[in-house]
Amino acid sequence: MAVRTPDPNPGWLSDDELQQARERMPILYVEAIPVRLDGLGQVTEIGLLLRMNAQSEITRTVVSGRVMRGERVRDALYRHLEKDLGPMAFPQLPADPTPFHVAEYFPLPGDGIYADDRQHAVSLCYIVPVTGSCDPRQDALELTWLSPEAAASELVTSEMEGGRGALVRAALARLGALR
Amino acid sequence: MAVRTPDPNPGWLSDDELQQARERMPILYVEAIPVRLDGLGQVTEIGLLLRMNAQSEITRTVVSGRVMRGERVRDALYRHLEKDLGPMAFPQLPADPTPFHVAEYFPLPGDGIYADDRQHAVSLCYIVPVTGSCDPRQDALELTWLSPEAAASELVTSEMEGGRGALVRAALARLGALR
Amino acid sequence: MAVRTPDPNPGWLSDDELQQARERMPILYVEAIPVRLDGLGQVTEIGLLLRMNAQSEITRTVVSGRVMRGERVRDALYRHLEKDLGPMAFPQLPADPTPFHVAEYFPLPGDGIYADDRQHAVSLCYIVPVTGSCDPRQDALELTWLSPEAAASELVTSEMEGGRGALVRAALARLGALR
Amino acid sequence: MAVRTPDPNPGWLSDDELQQARERMPILYVEAIPVRLDGLGQVTEIGLLLRMNAQSEITRTVVSGRVMRGERVRDALYRHLEKDLGPMAFPQLPADPTPFHVAEYFPLPGDGIYADDRQHAVSLCYIVPVTGSCDPRQDALELTWLSPEAAASELVTSEMEGGRGALVRAALARLGALR
Repeated sequence: MAVRTPDPNPGWLSDDELQQARERMPILYVEAIPVRLDGLGQVTEIGLLLRMNAQSEITRTVVSGRVMRGERVRDALYRHLEKDLGPMAFPQLPADPTPFHVAEYFPLPGDGIYADDRQHAVSLCYIVPVTGSCDPRQDALELTWLSPEAAASELVTSEMEGGRGALVRAALARLGALR
Repeated sequence: MAVRTPDPNPGWLSDDELQQARERMPILYVEAIPVRLDGLGQVTEIGLLLRMNAQSEITRTVVSGRVMRGERVRDALYRHLEKDLGPMAFPQLPADPTPFHVAEYFPLPGDGIYADDRQHAVSLCYIVPVTGSCDPRQDALELTWLSPEAAASELVTSEMEGGRGALVRAALARLGALR
Repeated sequence: MAVRTPDPNPGWLSDDELQQARERMPILYVEAIPVRLDGLGQVTEIGLLLRMNAQSEITRTVVSGRVMRGERVRDALYRHLEKDLGPMAFPQLPADPTPFHVAEYFPLPGDGIYADDRQHAVSLCYIVPVTGSCDPRQDALELTWLSPEAAASELVTSEMEGGRGALVRAALARLGALR
Repeated sequence: MAVRTPDPNPGWLSDDELQQARERMPILYVEAIPVRLDGLGQVTEIGLLLRMNAQSEITRTVVSGRVMRGERVRDALYRHLEKDLGPMAFPQLPADPTPFHVAEYFPLPGDGIYADDRQHAVSLCYIVPVTGSCDPRQDALELTWLSPEAAASELVTSEMEGGRGALVRAALARLGALR
């Protein structure tokens, strides 16, 4: 998982504490796939973040981050949307708090669809319509809006971090937009 | 089911044709439960329509109507929302076209939770956030906004047509707002 | 849609009556994707029916059929599973009556993902684990069990009738088995 | 949350380590509501565990337990079903790994529907059909099977630990069995 964006509440856990927690427990994440809808609710575009990974490769990802102790899932989702898309994105948070998909990230490749070399993370995934203008923070290079067809393509899904191409396809399937 | 509101395209089926269809097939409906959300997506209010039924009793119902031949579910949903809530309701149609609930209405009471003495109807049910102002058409007396607790109460659910109290409770459960 | 299997209750609607209904209303269908699960509930195989279409081409499809007047969705699902898979398939019908996907079939190609030249049909789609042995009726040539990867491949999805490759991919996404 | 049943792998975390983790992170749980289905998939009974809580009161709960580091959600679900229902329960694990409901437990009452004085826990909740015979471990007094009506009653839901009456009602709503 790639929440290398600086956290607005960095003091909640020190690096050591986070490392210890990662050695003991699965870490709870939320992830959001930003979408643009037309007036009838049909998806027109999928928003993917461009980012440079630790190997200086350009990769794609979605909005992602940890749920803090004492924080509701809904608040964590809002916090990470604001962190990754800026304050003017006006995301429409889901009325239904049940995720459309649960992504399980394991450190060793081959344990499943999703991988994260830092930790075992379990991520509650949401589709979030965005109505405003997005302004990713500086560590994300760009937010690109793609058509459903482009977002589902082999080229794009192969560029996504940690196997998240499957997550994008699952979102498109849920939206009735995956052929 | 209670779509006694005049249809904007009355010519699509004559009364005779509709009657014949009802004798032969289950009739496909869409239903929508209007909700108000706060900035984090949490439900604050449920919208229920007050209506006078054929026995001149005041009853409650939700947005409801048939899917026409050649019409997409999404378009039918939009059409009935506009018909029942007026043009300024600004409903946010669901990105996910899968209903949260399927209600099966049978003519004979006792065949299940939902009843409709006119027909066998199968209804795809959606939760629809509404951001504008609602102005029900004249045959609906009023749209009332209730708290989740009030909407789930015995008093309110017992006033709902055709067993739709169960539909309201199912919606609240889906929203994480049914205790 | 391809329910050309002879219906066990052919008298419910004459051909003329069915034709009339098709000219007036969307027709309600159920569809089921048979799957084999391992002991932990993970999908191991997807069952697809081979069939010869009106042009004598071999095509693939899923379990599919109409909901009759007065029939519950659950009963229609069971009836068509038995019709298409035989009496020893032992399907595990879903406890949750909400479909995982709604497929809208229109007569004209280009109106959406799914097409059916006979009618406008709206289909409630379910994933149904099957534990017994399947014995398709004579008009279906065979039931073939495919791995999730094979079922999602371009080759297989392009052979499916009416755009149902998208339905298979949506099912795999829901099962966490679409990469 | 009430997983006071002895864990089959107690060595995974010492009490101290668990306590430290609880002070730092939300703890990931799975919960399962055992159900009996008829041949058409309709729920006939809901299984609730009777247990004596720390105040020596008899309370009701559902199958519940932590997800361990490195463990898949599906494996955790299976492990806790076996722990709480015994080896002959033959649970049918869900093909769809998405929970039907997410329950958020906070230590302070009033922070939401669900409460757990030990920790902030986030629980992925599943409905699990059970076909065999259940034999709860000694620390659970009994597994009782209730009709959907009885399980949804005020009497029963008020006896459930941590607000889980709402969880049972949400399950019944999802099964189309909550009036």
